Amino acid sequence: MLKKFKYMIIGSPLPNEMMEEKRLNKFRALAAFSPDALSSVAYANQEIFLGLVVAGAAGLSFTLPIALAITLLLGVVALSYAQTIRGYPSGGGSYIVAKENLGTIPGLVAGAALLLDYVLTSAVSLTAGVAEIASAFPVLLPYRVWLALGLLVIIMLLNLRGLRESGTIVAFPVYLFLFSFIGMLLYGIVRGLIQGTPADLTVTAPVAFEPLTVVLLLHAFSAGCTALTGIEAISNGVTAFKAPEWVNARKTLVIMSILMGFMFLGSMGLTQFFGIIAGENETILSALARHLLGTGPLYYLVQFSTLGVLAVAANTSFAGFPRVTAILANDKFMPRQLFNIGDRLVFQNGIMLLTGFTALLIILFAGDSHALIPLFAVGAFTAFTLSQAGMVIHWWRSKEPGWLVKSIVNALGALVTFTTLLVVGYSKFLSGAWISVLVIPIIVFIFLRIRQHYKSVAGQLSMKGLPPSLRPFPKPRVVIPVSSVHRGMVDAVNFSRSITEDVTAVYVDINPGPDEDVLRARWNEWFPDVKFVVVSSPYRSITEPLLSFLDQMDLDLHDGRQAVLVLPELIPASPIHEMLHNQAADQIKKTLLFQRRKNGFQRIIIDVPYHLK
Amino acid sequence: MLKKFKYMIIGSPLPNEMMEEKRLNKFRALAAFSPDALSSVAYANQEIFLGLVVAGAAGLSFTLPIALAITLLLGVVALSYAQTIRGYPSGGGSYIVAKENLGTIPGLVAGAALLLDYVLTSAVSLTAGVAEIASAFPVLLPYRVWLALGLLVIIMLLNLRGLRESGTIVAFPVYLFLFSFIGMLLYGIVRGLIQGTPADLTVTAPVAFEPLTVVLLLHAFSAGCTALTGIEAISNGVTAFKAPEWVNARKTLVIMSILMGFMFLGSMGLTQFFGIIAGENETILSALARHLLGTGPLYYLVQFSTLGVLAVAANTSFAGFPRVTAILANDKFMPRQLFNIGDRLVFQNGIMLLTGFTALLIILFAGDSHALIPLFAVGAFTAFTLSQAGMVIHWWRSKEPGWLVKSIVNALGALVTFTTLLVVGYSKFLSGAWISVLVIPIIVFIFLRIRQHYKSVAGQLSMKGLPPSLRPFPKPRVVIPVSSVHRGMVDAVNFSRSITEDVTAVYVDINPGPDEDVLRARWNEWFPDVKFVVVSSPYRSITEPLLSFLDQMDLDLHDGRQAVLVLPELIPASPIHEMLHNQAADQIKKTLLFQRRKNGFQRIIIDVPYHLK
Repeated sequence: MLKKFKYMIIGSPLPNEMMEEKRLNKFRALAAFSPDALSSVAYANQEIFLGLVVAGAAGLSFTLPIALAITLLLGVVALSYAQTIRGYPSGGGSYIVAKENLGTIPGLVAGAALLLDYVLTSAVSLTAGVAEIASAFPVLLPYRVWLALGLLVIIMLLNLRGLRESGTIVAFPVYLFLFSFIGMLLYGIVRGLIQGTPADLTVTAPVAFEPLTVVLLLHAFSAGCTALTGIEAISNGVTAFKAPEWVNARKTLVIMSILMGFMFLGSMGLTQFFGIIAGENETILSALARHLLGTGPLYYLVQFSTLGVLAVAANTSFAGFPRVTAILANDKFMPRQLFNIGDRLVFQNGIMLLTGFTALLIILFAGDSHALIPLFAVGAFTAFTLSQAGMVIHWWRSKEPGWLVKSIVNALGALVTFTTLLVVGYSKFLSGAWISVLVIPIIVFIFLRIRQHYKSVAGQLSMKGLPPSLRPFPKPRVVIPVSSVHRGMVDAVNFSRSITEDVTAVYVDINPGPDEDVLRARWNEWFPDVKFVVVSSPYRSITEPLLSFLDQMDLDLHDGRQAVLVLPELIPASPIHEMLHNQAADQIKKTLLFQRRKNGFQRIIIDVPYHLK
Repeated sequence: MLKKFKYMIIGSPLPNEMMEEKRLNKFRALAAFSPDALSSVAYANQEIFLGLVVAGAAGLSFTLPIALAITLLLGVVALSYAQTIRGYPSGGGSYIVAKENLGTIPGLVAGAALLLDYVLTSAVSLTAGVAEIASAFPVLLPYRVWLALGLLVIIMLLNLRGLRESGTIVAFPVYLFLFSFIGMLLYGIVRGLIQGTPADLTVTAPVAFEPLTVVLLLHAFSAGCTALTGIEAISNGVTAFKAPEWVNARKTLVIMSILMGFMFLGSMGLTQFFGIIAGENETILSALARHLLGTGPLYYLVQFSTLGVLAVAANTSFAGFPRVTAILANDKFMPRQLFNIGDRLVFQNGIMLLTGFTALLIILFAGDSHALIPLFAVGAFTAFTLSQAGMVIHWWRSKEPGWLVKSIVNALGALVTFTTLLVVGYSKFLSGAWISVLVIPIIVFIFLRIRQHYKSVAGQLSMKGLPPSLRPFPKPRVVIPVSSVHRGMVDAVNFSRSITEDVTAVYVDINPGPDEDVLRARWNEWFPDVKFVVVSSPYRSITEPLLSFLDQMDLDLHDGRQAVLVLPELIPASPIHEMLHNQAADQIKKTLLFQRRKNGFQRIIIDVPYHLK
């Protein structure tokens, strides 16, 4: 029944053959991989505004210059990634590029940074989207955590259904956002040209309460760098494109970067030109839209489409995160389950993991995207830097035509992103970047421990050194724990007698009294050919006396055979009835499975179920 | 290791023989059973004040009359319970008395009401205690949920250690409270005698914003009736007293009732006499103590000892609730585990259950005792009424000397408590009593369903109608699911071959390719005499194709034998490693155990563990 419900929500299972068909064309791929990058305009704008407004008019006059610097950075990073797509047509995420060219540890650092980045993308996008809608409807402000979590669950379910379906569903809000936002910018530019002279910031801006310093500008720049997050998504997902994969992926990257640059620069420029100032509970984009369009239907359209694109931006993480965890799992740095492909041909465990971490961040940071931003850029720029540095080595080694130019382009990318990383890490350290700086090495440590564990297990399980002829065990000695004489015992006794003649029933007596004799009489009546032994338990535990009895039996008989436990288990008709039955069987099983005996032998447990109606 | 930690916290296991020694003398019994009743003075005072103050000076002038009415009620109920102790020297909780004399359903209603009452006692006492301390230190107000939960955990741990230890620990705060509070009252009475005339309430009381109506007085009376809660605790716990049990229990009840009456009447009288008014975040008791003692060391002593007694009042529930659940579990109305006696000779599952529900209430009601009070009195007075009514029938049936007088006393008790129940249920219905009115029948329904389930299981397990001679099964056919050829397989194959010659290895192929042939070759190299079969799984599930294979095998061979599954299971060295291994074996076990097959046979599962280092 649970299964039916699952299929209703996420669709029936898909066979392996459908794997190939799930590829994306450019139109859908842009919708699937770009929303993070495109929508960054929303929070990057907001962060730059919040960073500059404290220095009043003088601060805000740096809006456009900072936007220009970030757009330049965007161009360099995009160029770098276009080369990554060419160099790694089979999908070159930062992890793969860094690992193959720089070594395992840098690869793992990139992988950890990337995973952190995906979780933050998802959390920041959802909370920023809710902030846009709360700007339009302030009454929603107190519910922002719940709204963000609700959106998260919807996105998770769509992704559990599979990428193509989510591709269709996300395409609409992405293109709606592109048209409405670019339309608004074009209209704003026309109005700007008619107006001619920019607004006087000294009139509209609030009074400065901090002096305009280089540090303050660096802060604003660092926060604005979050505009670049998500640009690497396409290079991770090249294999999701239709053939020829790398050509289509590269074209999509170029289109995306141009759109990003225009939207970012356009909105920042207009904000400064018109001297827009946002109030306490409003975002700067909302204030710009309100200024240009008035509080009418068009304004609401822009706000809703911004929420829409931010919601599907979280979806970028749902496309990227499970891919990276699957690659890491395949390399044995993460639990194997993350490599399993689910019913709907998606990495369902990765999707669940991302949902869990995102929900945690949303709750811990009370749904406030501004508080999350300082953690954000560190992960992204660490991954950028390592990926670009790896590409330099890649071209250097390959010596293919044009390798020198290509490696110079990537070296420039690496240099620029590394510088930005230092600026961000320094200027935002105390306000949250320290968390990322702390978390990335911890994740890398866990990766290494997991790999070490898998290696050690593989060694322990190797057949090497085993004698080639394997002999069956002697016939087992069977022990059946007994609580009373009931129908569930019959199968257990019959099965035991089918595999051996040596069967003993044991009753653990936690409450000394006449019960013991009554039970013995009943037992002998029904199972006269099975020995019946009573073990007393002064501390009222069932498991421990039983285990000591088994050990003592092996020790006393000393015939090279090990006692095997046959457990009669009552299986209730419904899981809610489970708590109505003493969990003795479960506890015995658990204790026995995890018990390590000195002689190295493990107890074998035979479960004989008896179903209740 | 976990076990060691547990023993460090709650002490090492105690043998059955120590059961007798855990009895309580009167001094300790008063501390163990009375705090709920004694400390009720704290919240009952507060509720009466809150109920009357809305009607200003006119309202507050009814403080003493209402207190007198409640004290009268207290006397009647105490007298009634003194008789219950005599009539049921083996411990006559409301459940037993109502069940034996009125029938199963009234008994269950009393039981449900009692359980609800215990949970509310625990929640209300803890939150009221925190409110007293927050009156002294307002800075603690925002943390009241956490403070209440922290106290709850401490009390839980003390009770898991066992009653006697908690008896020693609770005795100190109870007697500290008695001495400091009674001392304060005596000092107040002396000051009142010196002052002579009572304060003019019209001067100190705030302006009335509701008229003084009968309904308002009934509200205040209802809320004040919570002063009586806990008075039944001794009658439930007679067996915990030292012999002669009923005599000691009765003496303790008398002492307790006199103390209760004096403290309640004394504090209410002084409050009215001095015209005490409490502010927003202060309790009325705190205001009284501050008025009499000033904000000095003595004031803090009274506040801390009130917190202390309220904290141990919650302990009354920890003595009572597990006893009642154990009795209900023994009658098969609650899950059997609640009757199990733990390592430390306490009903640990009942203690855990009470802790869980109390925490839930504290969280749901945000640590506000005032919001919990309306739920409270309904449960208590339902149990009182049924218990007293049951006693009437008990004396009537017994015809022992003085039965008529005794039954009249209990009839009076039943009448008075029933009337109070109606008043409380009516006047507090909308502000929370409806929850109790709703929850009690639901609990009774669950009780009945549980008993029905146990009865049905007992019927299914009965050996009646079984043929007297039981034959062993034919030798089993064994199937081993295989993921690869590794050391963990060796024991599984060897054990299988020791019990039968018919062994088949099955590989479920979720990813068609050359792996299959490699595996087959390796298998044949190591286990040449065991058949190797490949089953393909287009939907990537392991469990379902395996199960179909087993069913099909039985169907094809049709020899009356059922395939048995031998599961090689890797057991990691530490539980945190468990998630690093595919949970395939676990999933197969779970699915198989709960699978209901049409032919009525159940699959037997043989677990062959292989331990990893």
